[in-house]
Amino acid sequence: MHVQRLSILGLGLLGGSIALAVKNRIKDCKIIAYAHRRETLNAARELGAIDEGYDQPQAAVRGAELVILCTPVSMISPLLEQIGPVLEDGAVATDVGSTKRSIVAAGEKACSSRGHFVGSHPMAGSEKRGIRHARADLFEGAVCMTTPTERTDPAALGKVEKFWETLGMRVRRISPEDHDRLLADVSHLPHAVAAALVSMQDPEALGLCGKGFLDMTRIAGGEAGLWRDILLDNRDNVRMGIQKLIQMLGGLNGLLEPDRADELSRWLDAAAQQRQRLSSEVISNREGFTPSP
Amino acid sequence: MHVQRLSILGLGLLGGSIALAVKNRIKDCKIIAYAHRRETLNAARELGAIDEGYDQPQAAVRGAELVILCTPVSMISPLLEQIGPVLEDGAVATDVGSTKRSIVAAGEKACSSRGHFVGSHPMAGSEKRGIRHARADLFEGAVCMTTPTERTDPAALGKVEKFWETLGMRVRRISPEDHDRLLADVSHLPHAVAAALVSMQDPEALGLCGKGFLDMTRIAGGEAGLWRDILLDNRDNVRMGIQKLIQMLGGLNGLLEPDRADELSRWLDAAAQQRQRLSSEVISNREGFTPSP
Repeated sequence: MHVQRLSILGLGLLGGSIALAVKNRIKDCKIIAYAHRRETLNAARELGAIDEGYDQPQAAVRGAELVILCTPVSMISPLLEQIGPVLEDGAVATDVGSTKRSIVAAGEKACSSRGHFVGSHPMAGSEKRGIRHARADLFEGAVCMTTPTERTDPAALGKVEKFWETLGMRVRRISPEDHDRLLADVSHLPHAVAAALVSMQDPEALGLCGKGFLDMTRIAGGEAGLWRDILLDNRDNVRMGIQKLIQMLGGLNGLLEPDRADELSRWLDAAAQQRQRLSSEVISNREGFTPSP
Repeated sequence: MHVQRLSILGLGLLGGSIALAVKNRIKDCKIIAYAHRRETLNAARELGAIDEGYDQPQAAVRGAELVILCTPVSMISPLLEQIGPVLEDGAVATDVGSTKRSIVAAGEKACSSRGHFVGSHPMAGSEKRGIRHARADLFEGAVCMTTPTERTDPAALGKVEKFWETLGMRVRRISPEDHDRLLADVSHLPHAVAAALVSMQDPEALGLCGKGFLDMTRIAGGEAGLWRDILLDNRDNVRMGIQKLIQMLGGLNGLLEPDRADELSRWLDAAAQQRQRLSSEVISNREGFTPSP
């Protein structure tokens, strides 16, 4: 992969880790970054992660062949509108947002006059935030989803996918619609449920919690603003997930009768087996997998 | 602590770990065990965990000052009925069950003519099962709840609590009713929710799961039979927990509107802060804490 001038907009955990990974893996690639706060730009410079830093996004995309938007979800579409008109001719923009439908629509609208937009979602992260936690190996072995549409330029898609592969990721294509539907169930709803399980507890009950509860609710400790954006942007799918879960819990409620003990056992066993299969699949198929938070 | 003859009924992860811990910490204590299967007794002998083994519970309590029932929850009450009439005069029986109301009632009824019963719940374990995973240090630093009632003999309670402390646990007293109510919310319901979150997924969605989902649903991989017993025995409280959670999810559903973004943010932030506080409390208050599964 050869990129000579890469622009990274947003220097949090993901933007910072991309910069460090590129410095390790792509020779002679100049990294120009935008961050809202001057301290973030200074920290990135100190880490040797970037070559130039700006507090204006338009300044940071000048001359760049590839632009990666790494801000929280709700800021990606507004940023796309700002940078679209000043992209280099033929430049390719992509992002790392956890939702894809609205971002891809905004990107295709904002970028198509001069360059191209391709949606991405690298499934890597941590509940730790900020460039101080950035790691050059954050993406190694992880899956990156790309979300092409019928409007996506094939060469731009190829360029973006090659970029993620150069960072050590395995690319998987999926439509923006399927992405948002599946991620709602397997990521966005679970986050909301973890928060609900914490919120519903009496302080007295929390005093008795064990490792099971701590593990199960760990993701609820994530940044509220990031998750607010994700849940709102994907709210139609999250709502369907809430309804499915409420139905499941209603079904379970019905099984809590001594004369339905066998059915309850089968229900729990099916879940246990599915969960155990999942662990072995993850171990066998995703060696080195750095999973999404 | 001086126990000369200890009886352990059930040699799974907990029974086996108690035996190993006693061998490490209590000098000259003879351990007599009951297990249903001969292979389990042989494995325990090979590990040096027990001195005598029987496949009949009544044989295993003969001469014992202290009897600990370590079988799955649904087998504890029937076992108590079997051993009650053959306990030594003044012997103390306790258990390690994850529910307490029904077990304490059965124990007080079955044991009071000759000895005493005290309910216990050592909050230690793992999703691994069986004596092959037993560890002498399983209980070190963990909390053990004892559940005395107005019928509990104070000397018997003192003996049981001293025993758990000798194994490295910190004892906390709670009524059987409070125990079952609080554990429903913080342990039994979360298990059921983890199972529901796994069960509701399309296979396609599971293919995209990350570490967050795996951590959140890890407990769903636990043994179905054990959890069936717990959920059924504590079903009134678990049902109240299900209702509370459904209400929470309904409230969240209402917040998924762009014009309620601030409220959604506050809801998520309150959960995040509570979860973060929990981690630091666990770290500061429970050094060496080996939590319950």
